[in-house]
Amino acid sequence: MEWLTNLQFDQEIFTEILEYIGTFAFAISGIRLAASKDFDLFGAYVIGLVTAIGGGTIRDLCLDLKPFWMLNPSYMIWTGIALIFVIVFRKYLIKLNNTFFIFDTIGLALFTVVGIEKTLDCGYSFWVAIIMGTITGAAGGIIRDIFINQIPLIFRKEIYAIACIIGGIIYYLCDKIIDDITIVQIISALSVVLTRIIAVQYKIGLPHIKEEPNTK
Amino acid sequence: MEWLTNLQFDQEIFTEILEYIGTFAFAISGIRLAASKDFDLFGAYVIGLVTAIGGGTIRDLCLDLKPFWMLNPSYMIWTGIALIFVIVFRKYLIKLNNTFFIFDTIGLALFTVVGIEKTLDCGYSFWVAIIMGTITGAAGGIIRDIFINQIPLIFRKEIYAIACIIGGIIYYLCDKIIDDITIVQIISALSVVLTRIIAVQYKIGLPHIKEEPNTK
Amino acid sequence: MEWLTNLQFDQEIFTEILEYIGTFAFAISGIRLAASKDFDLFGAYVIGLVTAIGGGTIRDLCLDLKPFWMLNPSYMIWTGIALIFVIVFRKYLIKLNNTFFIFDTIGLALFTVVGIEKTLDCGYSFWVAIIMGTITGAAGGIIRDIFINQIPLIFRKEIYAIACIIGGIIYYLCDKIIDDITIVQIISALSVVLTRIIAVQYKIGLPHIKEEPNTK
Repeated sequence: MEWLTNLQFDQEIFTEILEYIGTFAFAISGIRLAASKDFDLFGAYVIGLVTAIGGGTIRDLCLDLKPFWMLNPSYMIWTGIALIFVIVFRKYLIKLNNTFFIFDTIGLALFTVVGIEKTLDCGYSFWVAIIMGTITGAAGGIIRDIFINQIPLIFRKEIYAIACIIGGIIYYLCDKIIDDITIVQIISALSVVLTRIIAVQYKIGLPHIKEEPNTK
Repeated sequence: MEWLTNLQFDQEIFTEILEYIGTFAFAISGIRLAASKDFDLFGAYVIGLVTAIGGGTIRDLCLDLKPFWMLNPSYMIWTGIALIFVIVFRKYLIKLNNTFFIFDTIGLALFTVVGIEKTLDCGYSFWVAIIMGTITGAAGGIIRDIFINQIPLIFRKEIYAIACIIGGIIYYLCDKIIDDITIVQIISALSVVLTRIIAVQYKIGLPHIKEEPNTK
Repeated sequence: MEWLTNLQFDQEIFTEILEYIGTFAFAISGIRLAASKDFDLFGAYVIGLVTAIGGGTIRDLCLDLKPFWMLNPSYMIWTGIALIFVIVFRKYLIKLNNTFFIFDTIGLALFTVVGIEKTLDCGYSFWVAIIMGTITGAAGGIIRDIFINQIPLIFRKEIYAIACIIGGIIYYLCDKIIDDITIVQIISALSVVLTRIIAVQYKIGLPHIKEEPNTK
């Protein structure tokens, strides 16, 4: 049975690596936006950090858990690496946009699944878990946009949070028919990634509410 | 004594109905503002939701309680109904402005009283309860305005949060002389409604601080 | 030994006085900014309050403690005194800018040390304590700037939060070699004050990230 324990171990490492990739990608997106707004190094680091850990922090406060980043300095360190990365490779970042898009989407998917898991572990219903998964994935970007004094992008463009919600619903459905929780999580994460890629590829967005007629 | 139990039951239902009316009215105000800023359906829903539940969530986090909306999906559902309502009746909303004003004011009054109650139940002093009542009633609108990137309206115009504070002080005074808590709550809620209606009717606002003389 | 107890007592009073000076200075800075944006009295009070207590509130929520201002009405009262002060002495405030700078810096230093202490008391590592000290000192100003719809000043100019971080690191280093915690705290607070004064005096700021080349 030793190989099974090893497999378990490998899976944990795998999840951790994915989580750091997500943190790195989220931090990069924050730092680049901050740099475009002429923030200094400290400001850019903070924006990168809140983008990466903001959603999970709100989730943990709502679930009455210790904020996850207070238990492990890795998130701080990866944000620092992201800052150095942006400074050093500034010139080549635009060419890497597609790579960042993939990283960011992996992060979104993984953050969503982690949020769902943590909420279910606390004994909440599935609809709460789906909301918390979405907050974990998408709220960091909202805080980032508030900090740089912009209307949050995800309220106006693109399928982003909706991908988290779809991933959450698929988690719920699969959970009913599949026994192995790991497989459920992988399917859920893949559905987030797929939804986002399809939406961006085909420029699918949500409709907007038409303006109220001006009766003046 | 059966009729008394029934009365009690009826009062709970009554409070619940009022709370959903408040949620609905708060959500409508958020969704309409979001629509005027060209948010998509998801963005409008989120703005409606934070307007309705934002204040109560901050209160519950400060009181170390589970956020109220995580225990009952009704708030999500009523926000969804509000979204559909705005989409369908878009053309007639302006004509309903007075109705919404009444609903919104009822919501404000009820949220304030609920906030005071919950805080007193946690064993805090009355001054904390009045602040928490005000946060429950008014903070959702502040978050809404931050999300749509505007200076919060209630910092510059109208008597709004002040109505909550007056309602809280009247709660405190009545609590000293009236035994029946239900009557205290009704008087407090009515005083919030009355303050707001009088202030809007007679365009009463708070004074502003005069500018500092420019010595340059 | 009575004189020792008296000394202890005096130190507590001294800390308390410093804390109220800090609250007063932070509130003044918020109220003046709010007044310059044409907020009404309520708005100005709220901005003053969140500037003074915002950072400590986030810290307490993260540490799962009761928000400090809910246990003692002094912070509300000092913010009220600050509001009256700004109204009455409006004409002379600009001349007092240097005094406010000193008060504000003392507040920053003390808030940082209080934040570090509280976090260590909760059993967290030092790196968490340094972050919480920085949040206690600097987050109120960030919330203030978000409320008045400006990009937070500390992300673009001046050494401010960095002074808290330096004070935190010096706290950590001194804690290893000095037994008396009071002396450690005084050195840490002084290092915050000194860093800030030197930075402002010599206009030292952090570098900004250069723009990404536009490849369009």
